[in-house]
Amino acid sequence: MYAAILAGGVGTRLWPRSRQSQPKQFSDIVGSGRTMIQATADRIAGLVAPNDLYVVTGLPYAALAAEQLPEVPTTQIIAEPSGRNTGPAIGLACVHIRQRNPQAVVAFLHSDHVVLDPAAFRAALQQAEPAAQAGYIVTLGIEPTFAHTGYGYIKRGIPLEGLSQDSSTVYSVEQFLEKPDRTTAESFLEEGGYYWNGGIFVCRVDVMLEEFSRQLPELAAGLARIDAALARSRDAADPIFHATFNEVWPTLPSISIDHGIMEHAQNVATVPLDAGWNDVGSWDALEAILEQDESRNFVAKGGLLPLESHGNIVYTDKEVVALIGVENLVVVDTGDTLLIGDKQQMQKVKDVVEYLRSQGRSELL
Amino acid sequence: MYAAILAGGVGTRLWPRSRQSQPKQFSDIVGSGRTMIQATADRIAGLVAPNDLYVVTGLPYAALAAEQLPEVPTTQIIAEPSGRNTGPAIGLACVHIRQRNPQAVVAFLHSDHVVLDPAAFRAALQQAEPAAQAGYIVTLGIEPTFAHTGYGYIKRGIPLEGLSQDSSTVYSVEQFLEKPDRTTAESFLEEGGYYWNGGIFVCRVDVMLEEFSRQLPELAAGLARIDAALARSRDAADPIFHATFNEVWPTLPSISIDHGIMEHAQNVATVPLDAGWNDVGSWDALEAILEQDESRNFVAKGGLLPLESHGNIVYTDKEVVALIGVENLVVVDTGDTLLIGDKQQMQKVKDVVEYLRSQGRSELL
Repeated sequence: MYAAILAGGVGTRLWPRSRQSQPKQFSDIVGSGRTMIQATADRIAGLVAPNDLYVVTGLPYAALAAEQLPEVPTTQIIAEPSGRNTGPAIGLACVHIRQRNPQAVVAFLHSDHVVLDPAAFRAALQQAEPAAQAGYIVTLGIEPTFAHTGYGYIKRGIPLEGLSQDSSTVYSVEQFLEKPDRTTAESFLEEGGYYWNGGIFVCRVDVMLEEFSRQLPELAAGLARIDAALARSRDAADPIFHATFNEVWPTLPSISIDHGIMEHAQNVATVPLDAGWNDVGSWDALEAILEQDESRNFVAKGGLLPLESHGNIVYTDKEVVALIGVENLVVVDTGDTLLIGDKQQMQKVKDVVEYLRSQGRSELL
Repeated sequence: MYAAILAGGVGTRLWPRSRQSQPKQFSDIVGSGRTMIQATADRIAGLVAPNDLYVVTGLPYAALAAEQLPEVPTTQIIAEPSGRNTGPAIGLACVHIRQRNPQAVVAFLHSDHVVLDPAAFRAALQQAEPAAQAGYIVTLGIEPTFAHTGYGYIKRGIPLEGLSQDSSTVYSVEQFLEKPDRTTAESFLEEGGYYWNGGIFVCRVDVMLEEFSRQLPELAAGLARIDAALARSRDAADPIFHATFNEVWPTLPSISIDHGIMEHAQNVATVPLDAGWNDVGSWDALEAILEQDESRNFVAKGGLLPLESHGNIVYTDKEVVALIGVENLVVVDTGDTLLIGDKQQMQKVKDVVEYLRSQGRSELL
């Protein structure tokens, strides 16, 4: 199995730790000692060889990716000249990997997700492999733990027989559903058979590129030109390839893989995933990821000295953070900035970022 | 008029900004651009010439005092080899100043107080001067603004006639009262004629030294030896003086001026002071000192970006402190430490300091 790690985004929801100069996937957000993209690569070690690992990221971050994943051949760190959403990014990965193996099975992973149980994650990818070999695009269906309204959902269909040792582990997909309202989300959980769509999937590159041709012909034509240029070049560093790539890339439509491909793809399957998955959508997510310490606080980084203070999430470079009589705060300290917020309101970090942007304080973003 | 600024203490109540390496009097706690001891000197400028200003501080801080008050002759920065409380400190200042003028009138000031109305403060000192000349020890009686239980009180007696242009500005002192309980403090305010004892007073050096002889003969004998050594020396830097000083000083009893002298002094008077006095006893005191900004927060230092956050007191070196949905916090950031606390519980800073001391983290104190 091959893998392609998507590492193109610059998340602002984990500001001030996630910055334009170092997006969250290149930071150690959970205090594990490894950055999120390193943890992503670690998670599939043993299942995917470093030599079969690809990274798609923005041009400004290619060096950072190469530095953090020295085991990945640098020609497999694919730099997008500009962000064109997940559709072109995945198409580009397919084009590169097909040079190696025209029917390669690839796991498409995000670089900024946390998985508490990597073994269960690898097991799900392995369960997806036979169906992917058989021509399915197999999404991982994340077992919902509550009625989240911030994710799309996958409604599973019937079990697909003969595609795994345990027939109940692979299902057809009846429908992809948009982010629901609260009531709808609750009904999904009550009814069962619905999963969060985490955007993680496994498929053959030729199957995916065929879907591009069928559903997004304009994008597919652009990818075909890139593909042809790559075939004529020595490698992805070849100037001949780059001339074509840089000419074609900006003309590609910016579209997500969900809207562009998945929702109307022909053979879609799903494998349930119950592995403590978390996309760390805001700082308060650390509460579900970190172990609570003996004082009932959550420390990702830094020395904590809590006095009658509980339920706080702390990420700092400080030797000592003294808390006195405070509860349910998020405290994030970087060199130049400090964020202190009510744990329930951390989605408003985007308003802070928006304000700083409006004030031209780009050095802080 | 002469002045002696007492700058010997190492306050822990404003940790982590007040540190052993730089006690609060040598820090700019209120964000005025001047340290507290500088603000103390500024406050009496025009009333006391720099050449008539003395500072009594601990040996480790003499260089800091000289650096921050370059206008004060270095021989007038008096370094105590060890802390012996306010009694010996004031006695030492008297001994030094009497070399210049045996009947000098001296204002004894603390280096770590804030006064919002310096003109009113100077006026009170000026009102105290004739009574001090006449042989009184004149304490400033701070008009209480609420029933504080953390200060001693001064009960005023009758107006002293003929000692000021306005006869109502100088009163005899009927009694010095220990820190009262809540009910007693409230009765003081209701009854009227009670003042907070801020430990600020004006007197002649010979009057004070006479009180030492009368009430603390052992201490007075030690001071007399220091006095004699100083008289024989060229100046306070003379090694002959230092030999005696270093021999005598550690033998002096450690006692406060309040208990040792003031409570039983013969001629004590008081001048009311209504000048926005504040001894910055804990971080929440900044609320009474700083102007509230348009977001209803109190910023001593650092850039603040508050989102639905009010009533917070912030002292940091950060370009941006983003607050989201938090109220009535104190936030103090230094390089290595961060303090976040509920404004109502800031007296517990001493518990944090105590804990760090018990853990041997003296580098953080």
